[in-house]
Amino acid sequence: MALDIFPECSGGITAAKGFVAGGLYCGIRKLKKDLAVIRSISPAAAAGVFTTNKTQAAPVVLDKQHLQQSKRCSAIVVNSGNANACTGERGMNDAREMIAAAAEALGIPANQVLISSTGVIGQYLPIEKITNGIRDLAQKLSADGSRDAAEAIMTTDTFSKEAAVRCTIGNSTITIGGIAKGSGMIAPNMATLLAFVTTDAAISPASLQQALAFANERSFNRLTVDGDMSTNDSLIILANGLAGNQEIVEGSDEFDKFSKALEYVLIKLAKMIARDGEGATKLVEIVVGGAKTEAEAVQAARAVANSNLVKTAIHGADPNWGRILCAVGYSGIDFNPAKVEIAFNTLTVLKPNYEIVLDEAAAKDVLSRDHVIVRIDLHQGTAIASFYTCDLTEEYIHINASYRT
Amino acid sequence: MALDIFPECSGGITAAKGFVAGGLYCGIRKLKKDLAVIRSISPAAAAGVFTTNKTQAAPVVLDKQHLQQSKRCSAIVVNSGNANACTGERGMNDAREMIAAAAEALGIPANQVLISSTGVIGQYLPIEKITNGIRDLAQKLSADGSRDAAEAIMTTDTFSKEAAVRCTIGNSTITIGGIAKGSGMIAPNMATLLAFVTTDAAISPASLQQALAFANERSFNRLTVDGDMSTNDSLIILANGLAGNQEIVEGSDEFDKFSKALEYVLIKLAKMIARDGEGATKLVEIVVGGAKTEAEAVQAARAVANSNLVKTAIHGADPNWGRILCAVGYSGIDFNPAKVEIAFNTLTVLKPNYEIVLDEAAAKDVLSRDHVIVRIDLHQGTAIASFYTCDLTEEYIHINASYRT
Repeated sequence: MALDIFPECSGGITAAKGFVAGGLYCGIRKLKKDLAVIRSISPAAAAGVFTTNKTQAAPVVLDKQHLQQSKRCSAIVVNSGNANACTGERGMNDAREMIAAAAEALGIPANQVLISSTGVIGQYLPIEKITNGIRDLAQKLSADGSRDAAEAIMTTDTFSKEAAVRCTIGNSTITIGGIAKGSGMIAPNMATLLAFVTTDAAISPASLQQALAFANERSFNRLTVDGDMSTNDSLIILANGLAGNQEIVEGSDEFDKFSKALEYVLIKLAKMIARDGEGATKLVEIVVGGAKTEAEAVQAARAVANSNLVKTAIHGADPNWGRILCAVGYSGIDFNPAKVEIAFNTLTVLKPNYEIVLDEAAAKDVLSRDHVIVRIDLHQGTAIASFYTCDLTEEYIHINASYRT
Repeated sequence: MALDIFPECSGGITAAKGFVAGGLYCGIRKLKKDLAVIRSISPAAAAGVFTTNKTQAAPVVLDKQHLQQSKRCSAIVVNSGNANACTGERGMNDAREMIAAAAEALGIPANQVLISSTGVIGQYLPIEKITNGIRDLAQKLSADGSRDAAEAIMTTDTFSKEAAVRCTIGNSTITIGGIAKGSGMIAPNMATLLAFVTTDAAISPASLQQALAFANERSFNRLTVDGDMSTNDSLIILANGLAGNQEIVEGSDEFDKFSKALEYVLIKLAKMIARDGEGATKLVEIVVGGAKTEAEAVQAARAVANSNLVKTAIHGADPNWGRILCAVGYSGIDFNPAKVEIAFNTLTVLKPNYEIVLDEAAAKDVLSRDHVIVRIDLHQGTAIASFYTCDLTEEYIHINASYRT
């Protein structure tokens, strides 16, 4: 499962050919960009993965309809500051108005517009501000607009998140780039996580959906900040084919390569989201190896990554391996605790048969860094999986105890 | 599911006839009682419920063996400050030494002794201090010793937890009393939760086990502080029959009454543990009603009770009902979000069809109290269930970031 390395490039969501984007302040939030538009200059194959929460926000409901009806889309409109969730029929109408305004301003059919909202739940959108903003922003999209768009979709994120890679498919160089936002309510099976990806690769909508589902499984679905899953999670990809490659089809080597490159971009964005978890001071990677199956490795890694006790211990640079072993213990997998080996980065602290080789000072040093890798070897097999999370801090509480007010 | 009310009495773990207890400082912890003994003056029917964590501490392994071999026990020995978990063969030997010392000091067979340990994981017990302490304590047990025992089993608990009730079985008055400790690592299916209960009722070991499992299901298994499940959770009951009632048998009205009285005591202890969750400032009760089945009500209530976002919002007295609805949404139950009604204590904030009737000032006032009941009506059926938790605070992080050091 060694991750293939792809050459990274700048440009984020507009790195691929034929994409423009932008972001501006339309008046939903206080003194912060709150509206983004991403556009392909020609209709693009589109695919999406959405929250599995029973309580789904209006934009999620409409996007799923659009993707079912029309496999090609040209634009994504996103607002932050208000999730348009739990807003009933009025929320659905507001979402339709957002779509109509974008279709008109961009001169494209309404069913080629996808939308997303993120922010507070249960309040109505200030729809007039948004539609005015869309008309304004439609005139300002540019190939340099990725950063603005990335900033406009942020909620409590402290930095904007962009990533892009290039790779060769046949004789063509294709580019895949994206933007994303966290940063609370992040849990497996997606969260209030929005991620948008564009590529100039030529690929059918069905193959694109496959590649997206595959890459999502190993990136955003292995990301947890606080175990909560939101009503608005959306991961959307547009592929406009302007790279000129022969259309990628499922089952081919090109499909595998494309999927790996997409996975690379999504993992990079997922790690940024983990590092920027609400109140987080460090990126924490949980790597479970020596498992019987990848599914069991994921299950164990998830339990550790979701343990408040493990995450507070890492925050305090406390090498409390007992809590880690304990979390694996209640993960539900079948294993022998006496066989387990645990290391922080490259520093082993527990060997099989509970042999403690903990160098407190060295461990404290490793755990004080801003990227901690917890390695757990079950010594039961050869499967391995990673999970991405962050430490749990006083600041998380502070942010979330007063989010609405 | 209205809870029957039983008359409460004082005396905790020694409220029932024929039980003595005590607690003292034996040198494991700093300046705090750390060793408790509970004893029945005659062999008692015994039953237990233990952690389902794959990583089980030595005392848990041995208690399960004892309860299988011998259905009658006379004493429970408990130390705090060290969990004797992840300590391999040496930990097993230390646990056996604890049992041997108690058997000798109390003049009872070794297989009539049960033990528990709670505290830090992965360190060896200071076994000599403990065996010396046991010999000392064996001379000091008394019918007034419940408080001392309750204090000796505390770890990060801020107050000791005792409860007892009386009820009539046939022509006899029976008493059920207990002590418990939390306060981190509390999650459904038990946690680093220790609870010990004594009763003078006459009941067979098999019926006692049934009653305990039943009462545990609606009390400690509906309690969560941080979603972590420990290696040491133990709930043990001793029934010495000294009340003189006719032996209670499963399926009888007396069995039902005894089970309800036991449930009453366990819920009372569970609520104390929730209120005293690490860093907690308030007891939070999640009541889900209008569910299709009790299992679905429990599933929804558990998701809300485990949501860090809900628990931080309640800490900040923020009536963020959207997070509550969202947590029900990802709980996995089938329901219609548009039908849901949400109230804090008696103050309704959300009516069906997303009608928001939130009086911010009144809600703030309710949420600022030290006992908050979140009522969620799914309007889908008649089943109801409660879950017990607390708010999530900066202090939780502070305690757990430096627990070992």
